[in-house]
Amino acid sequence: MIKVGIVGGTGYTGVELLRILVNHPDVELKVITSRSEEGVRVADMFPNLRGHTDLQFSVPDVQKLGECDVVFFATPHGVAHAMAEEILNTGARVIDLSADFRLQDADEWAQWYGQPHGAPGILPQAVYGLPEVNREQIKQARLIAVPGCYPTSVQLGLLPLLENNLLGEQMLIADCKSGVSGAGRGASVGSLLCEASESMMAYAVKGHRHLPEIRQGLKRAAGKEVQLTFVPHLTPMIRGIHSTLYASASGLTQEKLQALYEQRYANEPFVDVMPAGSHPATRSVKGSNVCRIAVHYHAATGQIIVLSVIDNLVKGASGQAVQNMNIMFGLAENAGLQQVALLP
Amino acid sequence: MIKVGIVGGTGYTGVELLRILVNHPDVELKVITSRSEEGVRVADMFPNLRGHTDLQFSVPDVQKLGECDVVFFATPHGVAHAMAEEILNTGARVIDLSADFRLQDADEWAQWYGQPHGAPGILPQAVYGLPEVNREQIKQARLIAVPGCYPTSVQLGLLPLLENNLLGEQMLIADCKSGVSGAGRGASVGSLLCEASESMMAYAVKGHRHLPEIRQGLKRAAGKEVQLTFVPHLTPMIRGIHSTLYASASGLTQEKLQALYEQRYANEPFVDVMPAGSHPATRSVKGSNVCRIAVHYHAATGQIIVLSVIDNLVKGASGQAVQNMNIMFGLAENAGLQQVALLP
Amino acid sequence: MIKVGIVGGTGYTGVELLRILVNHPDVELKVITSRSEEGVRVADMFPNLRGHTDLQFSVPDVQKLGECDVVFFATPHGVAHAMAEEILNTGARVIDLSADFRLQDADEWAQWYGQPHGAPGILPQAVYGLPEVNREQIKQARLIAVPGCYPTSVQLGLLPLLENNLLGEQMLIADCKSGVSGAGRGASVGSLLCEASESMMAYAVKGHRHLPEIRQGLKRAAGKEVQLTFVPHLTPMIRGIHSTLYASASGLTQEKLQALYEQRYANEPFVDVMPAGSHPATRSVKGSNVCRIAVHYHAATGQIIVLSVIDNLVKGASGQAVQNMNIMFGLAENAGLQQVALLP
Amino acid sequence: MIKVGIVGGTGYTGVELLRILVNHPDVELKVITSRSEEGVRVADMFPNLRGHTDLQFSVPDVQKLGECDVVFFATPHGVAHAMAEEILNTGARVIDLSADFRLQDADEWAQWYGQPHGAPGILPQAVYGLPEVNREQIKQARLIAVPGCYPTSVQLGLLPLLENNLLGEQMLIADCKSGVSGAGRGASVGSLLCEASESMMAYAVKGHRHLPEIRQGLKRAAGKEVQLTFVPHLTPMIRGIHSTLYASASGLTQEKLQALYEQRYANEPFVDVMPAGSHPATRSVKGSNVCRIAVHYHAATGQIIVLSVIDNLVKGASGQAVQNMNIMFGLAENAGLQQVALLP
Repeated sequence: MIKVGIVGGTGYTGVELLRILVNHPDVELKVITSRSEEGVRVADMFPNLRGHTDLQFSVPDVQKLGECDVVFFATPHGVAHAMAEEILNTGARVIDLSADFRLQDADEWAQWYGQPHGAPGILPQAVYGLPEVNREQIKQARLIAVPGCYPTSVQLGLLPLLENNLLGEQMLIADCKSGVSGAGRGASVGSLLCEASESMMAYAVKGHRHLPEIRQGLKRAAGKEVQLTFVPHLTPMIRGIHSTLYASASGLTQEKLQALYEQRYANEPFVDVMPAGSHPATRSVKGSNVCRIAVHYHAATGQIIVLSVIDNLVKGASGQAVQNMNIMFGLAENAGLQQVALLP
Repeated sequence: MIKVGIVGGTGYTGVELLRILVNHPDVELKVITSRSEEGVRVADMFPNLRGHTDLQFSVPDVQKLGECDVVFFATPHGVAHAMAEEILNTGARVIDLSADFRLQDADEWAQWYGQPHGAPGILPQAVYGLPEVNREQIKQARLIAVPGCYPTSVQLGLLPLLENNLLGEQMLIADCKSGVSGAGRGASVGSLLCEASESMMAYAVKGHRHLPEIRQGLKRAAGKEVQLTFVPHLTPMIRGIHSTLYASASGLTQEKLQALYEQRYANEPFVDVMPAGSHPATRSVKGSNVCRIAVHYHAATGQIIVLSVIDNLVKGASGQAVQNMNIMFGLAENAGLQQVALLP
Repeated sequence: MIKVGIVGGTGYTGVELLRILVNHPDVELKVITSRSEEGVRVADMFPNLRGHTDLQFSVPDVQKLGECDVVFFATPHGVAHAMAEEILNTGARVIDLSADFRLQDADEWAQWYGQPHGAPGILPQAVYGLPEVNREQIKQARLIAVPGCYPTSVQLGLLPLLENNLLGEQMLIADCKSGVSGAGRGASVGSLLCEASESMMAYAVKGHRHLPEIRQGLKRAAGKEVQLTFVPHLTPMIRGIHSTLYASASGLTQEKLQALYEQRYANEPFVDVMPAGSHPATRSVKGSNVCRIAVHYHAATGQIIVLSVIDNLVKGASGQAVQNMNIMFGLAENAGLQQVALLP
Repeated sequence: MIKVGIVGGTGYTGVELLRILVNHPDVELKVITSRSEEGVRVADMFPNLRGHTDLQFSVPDVQKLGECDVVFFATPHGVAHAMAEEILNTGARVIDLSADFRLQDADEWAQWYGQPHGAPGILPQAVYGLPEVNREQIKQARLIAVPGCYPTSVQLGLLPLLENNLLGEQMLIADCKSGVSGAGRGASVGSLLCEASESMMAYAVKGHRHLPEIRQGLKRAAGKEVQLTFVPHLTPMIRGIHSTLYASASGLTQEKLQALYEQRYANEPFVDVMPAGSHPATRSVKGSNVCRIAVHYHAATGQIIVLSVIDNLVKGASGQAVQNMNIMFGLAENAGLQQVALLP
């Protein structure tokens, strides 16, 4: 049994980690921390966990966390910067769901997050935890940066095109629609039901923090800089990201494009390339760790449209974090991750 | 491995059965029938099942169904009447999620459903599949009538009061709020998003088909006729039933009431009596087989208020059906039923 | 033109007042106050008002407010206590949408709101602004306490029974379902889309602040104390209250009951008694000032079920406030209030 | 008073027309037709209209319709083809909300709708009813083709760029998100609350019937063929379209772009160009006839992003139809159309 600690379990990625881990066959939950909720039973805050765990929130304590085999950070940015190194020094591994180690360039991080990078010393050892790209490095990693939700859906949707150098120079467009849980569990007017339901809006058109992360990933795949326009939208639902991706390439066919994607992801347990002509709905992945993708080609214009859907809290956060853990510890990659999406 | 067949798998209780059964450790899915969808892969109709099953819909065939150990009916009323006996004759057991065998009185059934009872011959052997009441009979049963969704939440909420004869003669009130999935997957104007979302309404105030079923269950618990006013409401959400139950009894205390419920359900794996003062939300059971109950007592007036929540498709239908199967076949009662509710 | 001021226009009742008043034919909006938003254009905070008003929020100033004919308070409780008398002294009239003057007994107010009543001196002149009961007093009033949302729907639903002394001694039950806007525009975790949508829950079962207000109104109608159990529920929608009211009386008929309600409300412009057998949906009043009521009688048991729906922000708050203004100033009672509910 | 008839009033554009017209100061509603609902009171089908109209559905009758000054068609495609000419011959004018006269090329229409054009003879006199483009022709028109919902939001969003010839040759992208009411009031599984809520999906990526209409409008504005990729998405809300439009042009600035849009729409009563940096939400136009637009320019890449929102049932259908009527009959263009959006 792998001994697991969680730092910061009071947000949505925290409770989602718990939902997955309490039923994980190889995991023993040892610690969950929250300064503000010390002594509170986790199941009192999240009643869906009643009957599944007796754990209580405790104040973060490096020694106690260090007794775990792996520590997840489900915290706002900056917290893992402050604590990760100490925990790594105890011998425990770290899987960080926050943005702290996603960008390889500490200066770029500082620019987007408006504060200096707090742990440049360990940044080089951080592995970007997208298994479909970095599975081998993840096996050896001691510090994982779990990809952001938008970056997961966009990268998985574009990788086959970029890796095969099909796109040349062009502006790619990622029009992404996210459920409100992406904004977290903090009390803010914009996330109130009365503000966010029955409405649709774009936000952060000027520039969103996930943009440099996506560009970094696309560049790695393409072997060169990639231009991207990324527009996120707040969508009136709890969970789910739908990325609609636009690129163009002449000389393809629907069949070639379909085959390209099917081959790229043939052995991926959590990427599902749907049949040609499909329109994946986010509800088809609600509560599951799957990314479903459909590709469309307009032969007359050379336009490629990729539809990529995930559950932002699962494949976009906590499920992917557990997938990384499974890989790091040599478990079956889908251990604890076989939930069927809740439909309807 | 228990060989399982499903008759009528194209509705919401059907897909929910599949969601549970494809991950059930002791089950092998053999057959799923639908006349209209013959040859269609189940996962093509319900993409959440992609990667979990290759089963195709087939035309119902008693011989093929008879090779199963157990056959679930997830059909409109009348279908199980027509087929159950033949299937029982093959030696397979039957778990019927429809209303066909819920009422012990065939005449009463005929009255509420507007057609003659189609299988009065086997009605006496039907066991009402509410494990919290009939666990012993379920073990021996060959034909199970899975309780309706409203009846499950109302009965579990009132049983401790009635079994202990605390209520005397009085009109009980069950004000019940159901998500729209209770209306099924049939195309009807009233269930359109544009009709049912952002609105709340009562329906069937004159009399709902679940009323006689609830009364039958309450009478069994009380040992006498029980008066009940039952008002169902269509609530703008997909899943969940919230039953608010009103009774009165002088001379109680909050502590006694709380203790009564805790004792009654102490050994029940799927009934969770919450701490005094709680207000269970339906989302705390979304996708799980749990019924959560809170009891409130107004000492000044003797008013008892019971709040009882379930997921109508799980504890109110398919989960409870699987719970019955587990009991019938001597499996762990919670096998395949340990899903944590999806929150948020 | 009536000169209107609004104190506290940044919440939902504030923006709803504005929605109504900017199109009111007899109103000139002069002042809207908010300490925190001083200088901000109202339409910058609430973009639905772009093109309808150029008003800016200003710091509350009694002199400036006193130049108005009437001042609305759309504030948390306590604010009107502090300011109303000064404004009345300028000659302006006051219509208070908060709870400050709803209870005639200052001690009871203090008990439920956990602070002393801040304006007992002017409390006796406050008129409870339910036009269906107090139209004549409203005409003369200088200080109006606009009823709460739950109290409006419950009182309108029960008045005909109580005024005709049909109920005797009994516990009445009001099972009320409210949209989330009833909780206001404040940032709180419980009102987040991810917490409140796709879920149903009761709250404040122990006792809600609207209970004494409802009891006060029912007592006035009955001429004696009335027993009431009131359970509010948070419903996953923005607007709307659905009150399901339970009483019993033998010897009635559906026809008599129907006639009783139709006669009581025959001349009321904003109470719509629906045909026998109806089930009003809250969406049928969304955005309108109408209360729709349907009555059901179960002859076999003597049970009366009244269904009463309003838009909590209109007839339950801002619309009713304007209706009071119209009456006070001798305008057509429906001036500015003829919006058709938005359906779908 | 203008005498108005409506053919086909049982769908969402029909009830929306009624919501607007019953409060229109210059309109007298004379006839509303529906074969299937003959004799039913409109307010019995749509209870929001109780108290606003006593009209009953009648069987369509050209003579009776011909006594009106104007007849609206709120019908599926093909119906106006069959009836419009006869009605025009009586002297009444026709405003068609369906797709029947939107495409100037009858062959193209036939191709997209899978049936021959039913009224090529009167097609040349049809005026495309986008007032921001065709106001002068509308004044003289006897037959109006009200634009589709997607085409309205996309054209208003792109017109200033095309009319000023800023775009050169390029593929424009319109990523459009529509509420479910766009699918109409017909009973279909895909529009059920349990299918369409809590989910996001693209549809018709291969080609949507609004595509040729949009291209026709863009071509007219540009004076040449325009390339467009159009991807519609089903969004979990009742009303609203959010179009996110992507184009590129070097050498612009945010200020120039902003000025371009502000000038273009300076005198348009129903197009609101929001301040630079804005993100319009669909709820800011819910129930109103306004199109709100924000423009963003990424100077580093030359990327233009236009955000354009409407209520699909108002500016995208019935409100625009009434705006056309106002223009045709020389009324104030905003008569009956000053509703403030319902927020929250």
